[in-house]
Amino acid sequence: MTTLLEKVCCPADLRLLDADELVALAAEVREFLVDAVCRSGGHLGPNLGVVELTIALHRVFDSPRDPIVWDTGHQSYVHKLFTGRRAEFGDLRGPGGLSGYPSRAESVHDVAENSHASTALSYVDGLAKAFALRGERDRIPVAVIGDGAMTGGLAWEALNNIGSAAHDRPLVIVLNDNTRSYAPTVGGVADHLARLRAGTATSVFGELGLVCTRPVDGHDLEALETALRQARGLALERGRPVLVHAVTVKGRGYPPAESDDADRMHAVGVVDPATGRTSRPSAPTWTATFGDEIARIAAEREDVVAITAAMLRPVGLHRFATEFPGRVFDVGMAEQHAVTSAAGLAMGGMHPVVAIYATFFNRAFDQALMDVALHRLPVTFVLDRAGVTGEDGASHHGMWDLSLLNLVPGLRIAAPRDATTLRAELREAVGDDTGPTLLRFPKSAVGRELPAVRQVDGVDVLSECAGEDVLMVSVGALASTCLEAAGILAAQGIGVTVVDPRWVLPVNPVLADLAASHELVVTVEDNTRAGGVGAGVAQLLHDRAIATPVCSVGLLPEFLGAGKRADLLSAAGIDGESLAERVAAELVSRAEWQDVEVVA
Amino acid sequence: MTTLLEKVCCPADLRLLDADELVALAAEVREFLVDAVCRSGGHLGPNLGVVELTIALHRVFDSPRDPIVWDTGHQSYVHKLFTGRRAEFGDLRGPGGLSGYPSRAESVHDVAENSHASTALSYVDGLAKAFALRGERDRIPVAVIGDGAMTGGLAWEALNNIGSAAHDRPLVIVLNDNTRSYAPTVGGVADHLARLRAGTATSVFGELGLVCTRPVDGHDLEALETALRQARGLALERGRPVLVHAVTVKGRGYPPAESDDADRMHAVGVVDPATGRTSRPSAPTWTATFGDEIARIAAEREDVVAITAAMLRPVGLHRFATEFPGRVFDVGMAEQHAVTSAAGLAMGGMHPVVAIYATFFNRAFDQALMDVALHRLPVTFVLDRAGVTGEDGASHHGMWDLSLLNLVPGLRIAAPRDATTLRAELREAVGDDTGPTLLRFPKSAVGRELPAVRQVDGVDVLSECAGEDVLMVSVGALASTCLEAAGILAAQGIGVTVVDPRWVLPVNPVLADLAASHELVVTVEDNTRAGGVGAGVAQLLHDRAIATPVCSVGLLPEFLGAGKRADLLSAAGIDGESLAERVAAELVSRAEWQDVEVVA
Repeated sequence: MTTLLEKVCCPADLRLLDADELVALAAEVREFLVDAVCRSGGHLGPNLGVVELTIALHRVFDSPRDPIVWDTGHQSYVHKLFTGRRAEFGDLRGPGGLSGYPSRAESVHDVAENSHASTALSYVDGLAKAFALRGERDRIPVAVIGDGAMTGGLAWEALNNIGSAAHDRPLVIVLNDNTRSYAPTVGGVADHLARLRAGTATSVFGELGLVCTRPVDGHDLEALETALRQARGLALERGRPVLVHAVTVKGRGYPPAESDDADRMHAVGVVDPATGRTSRPSAPTWTATFGDEIARIAAEREDVVAITAAMLRPVGLHRFATEFPGRVFDVGMAEQHAVTSAAGLAMGGMHPVVAIYATFFNRAFDQALMDVALHRLPVTFVLDRAGVTGEDGASHHGMWDLSLLNLVPGLRIAAPRDATTLRAELREAVGDDTGPTLLRFPKSAVGRELPAVRQVDGVDVLSECAGEDVLMVSVGALASTCLEAAGILAAQGIGVTVVDPRWVLPVNPVLADLAASHELVVTVEDNTRAGGVGAGVAQLLHDRAIATPVCSVGLLPEFLGAGKRADLLSAAGIDGESLAERVAAELVSRAEWQDVEVVA
Repeated sequence: MTTLLEKVCCPADLRLLDADELVALAAEVREFLVDAVCRSGGHLGPNLGVVELTIALHRVFDSPRDPIVWDTGHQSYVHKLFTGRRAEFGDLRGPGGLSGYPSRAESVHDVAENSHASTALSYVDGLAKAFALRGERDRIPVAVIGDGAMTGGLAWEALNNIGSAAHDRPLVIVLNDNTRSYAPTVGGVADHLARLRAGTATSVFGELGLVCTRPVDGHDLEALETALRQARGLALERGRPVLVHAVTVKGRGYPPAESDDADRMHAVGVVDPATGRTSRPSAPTWTATFGDEIARIAAEREDVVAITAAMLRPVGLHRFATEFPGRVFDVGMAEQHAVTSAAGLAMGGMHPVVAIYATFFNRAFDQALMDVALHRLPVTFVLDRAGVTGEDGASHHGMWDLSLLNLVPGLRIAAPRDATTLRAELREAVGDDTGPTLLRFPKSAVGRELPAVRQVDGVDVLSECAGEDVLMVSVGALASTCLEAAGILAAQGIGVTVVDPRWVLPVNPVLADLAASHELVVTVEDNTRAGGVGAGVAQLLHDRAIATPVCSVGLLPEFLGAGKRADLLSAAGIDGESLAERVAAELVSRAEWQDVEVVA
């Protein structure tokens, strides 16, 4: 028997179904989602919460003519189902498979691919301006934004523009209020939304110039559709922005998600659909290692406080928060405020540790530079998910952080290579009261211990050979890859000294001395080659008039797609074998070239 | 006779004056400010507007125990006068003189030095958290923030945290509502403040959890002091954040400022105090050249629109706005929204030109990367005040932009060297519909025309010599400096080829070929050396196995103080003579080193 879901190949098909069929369709969608996402891993809770909302949106609005922008795009799975991509769900988040976020390459119904939060209102403001200028006044851009994303400043910058009385441009905002981001949403905005749901407040959105509807049950298809139709009509009639406040339940309809207090199964790996649990035992991660050590440090030092931007558990701060609840601050999806309030805490005598995913730290560059570093404040930044992350694709790789943060004067950056160096470098960072410090490590299980054979002026030497052919400068977790390459090269008679500078930026000048006694320097980092450690080492050698050539291995300055970390690294030439091959080839070509030069 | 102002050496002295004396003091302060600022240049309008507010704040609060954080610190002159720095005003904004912003080196009464807007609420949130943890519950951090700065998202991230019902921490926010940033404040927030002033609205700040007082006349000393005392009492008593809405007039008490519709004499050069006008004729600037050309382009192409973040005139968009008012968008002090709404406009078929000061673009890195570049959208960024700016000091130099924006894949960056190349490169940028483009130029008069002698694969050759000693790669406006150095070196028998790559990043690979035929490459940029053009060229040569050494001249990766552009550049070794000396010395040392190597 053909299911209803199979009948929906495009949004128009939704408009052919009657009320009962729509309810049945919603149930089918949930069953499909639980099955598919438990099989592949992905975002489950958010998508279970928007099943009815997505049905209603596609019945009321005419995508792609009315573009629907999904904020933090992981809530777009249902939208993908209704726009011809059901069959591709088997390949969700795989390399070359269906993206876990909207993708313009996949469908004309997808608008914005980026998954960083709080952007949707700005996109629709721009789209509305464009439609007005082009005279396309019957096109209504629609933004779907969560209450969690309303804690990000960008959304308020957009609201200020959208609400202005100085112009008339129709658009519709759906506030998908499920009272959570990962964890429950915090702050004055969340308090306000609670009062709005209870009917005891004046809407701040109304005060800022938007036309607001009353809160509507986001799982009542009929009520939702009525509210959206009304919003569409008002937007067109008055030429004004209209906000629909839809109250939804994250994880709706799937008991393991609804009963998960931590994050309503926000994002899962491969799990058993019956229980929502994974059967695989999990190896200790970088995150957990950090989380344990910072909690230990907190027990020793009262002045150490921690800050998270709506990701307490994902960045490993739950133990700290459990043991010292008054000293961990969840500031919402607000990386800028995380950093500038850390500056205030440091001015007040604390040592704040700001733990954030590397990719989201992009949002706080100016604050790290101007608010923390300019004042030489002792703030420690901890960037989790640095480097190549994996299945979340282009907007989740933390591949710019080293280059970006190397621009901040006085900021010292460490990249631990194993659990022991993570703990040690964290203590060195928190022990530094002269200025800001930063640690970065990847998403994954922390690997085996890699002890140093000796240390030279702060640089750990991990392996040495008799020959002085190659100096390999390893950054962080890539040490094991470098050691593997060194082993392969040793078997070929090529001597490689592998060093881990520990504090990788600014570049330790002792690397220049080490470089001078080798034929070739190879730097290895899972960061963009533009302005990274390799570029810094190359510049250092030019400055010191050291002619040793530098082969800087890193990520190309391009956006990187989704895939498993190991696969993506291999594709970039960052695995033991590729690295060894590359080094051997470089030695040959450099030797040839040097001969040519000498002859010339 | 001793004036009242002379009697005020510290805030406590203000508490000894009676009501009449305070009024007289305010008049003296205004007279002093007009005289001093017209003599040295600086921020006039904002400071004239906060005379009474500063008096009242220092009478009611106990700085530095109660730290007072001035948002966009240029409104701190009166505060400086009352904290022992009257005598230093003769040296305002000079090198080594009084900073035009708060400075922790100058006074314990100064908290945050950074002048980027919308930070104050985050600082006081952090300070309040620190005081609570340290048990210093009688200390009240105070933030003074303008209505203009309330258009920046960071302020709303902070409000969300401050207003939370989940904790009790006292602090006071003074909303200095003068209805303007440079120009009148725009948007839903400004509309809302107007209704609050008229008494016809519910305060959004109250809805977000703050205790709010009624709007108070910010020039009525008695009313202001009463409101602040009440706020202080409420904050202490309830342990809650309290907002005082002070209505002020920018430029108050100085007719040339009050009647200046453009920006109320926001910031002035050296002017005649009687008229507020400058007697110096002004040379054509980079800004004006851009402003004229973009207006011309707008007349030719209907799809070109412009975006400013509350700086219509300062970035040269007033002509465009006058001629095509519907196609220029002032988004408020909201660089993030400027960029993401530009992405929306581009998705809607427009070609947006986002004109922003280089230093403020730091705020929008993530949006340029994720919202514009990831989608390969045709958006043109125009960074004014790039490089060394001058008297505004550390937080105004645009010295990170090239390194920062080189991280954005697919973004092409041009640095025009004169008016002709500015116009040409702007047209090339706006003519590129395949992805984002960026132009950067400094604050200053645009210099003389510097025609190319020939072009090689997109690189302009500006001067050539018979010898093949030095390839000098000039970035933007530094071309004249490079040519001057080349002239000096030519007289010494050293041949220099000066080239301007026009599109400076990503590095044009033809530079590798050019480098191969020279003894030394010198790159010259007024951008941090970390990850800039020089670092990119050095990496390129390593990649291509070209052994020509690279001497990368740029700014040290340190914060740079205030001073005249030419002086600061000279101090960094970026003037004709220094550059020539440096090159000559490098040639000698490289030759010596090469001999040594050959011998070894």
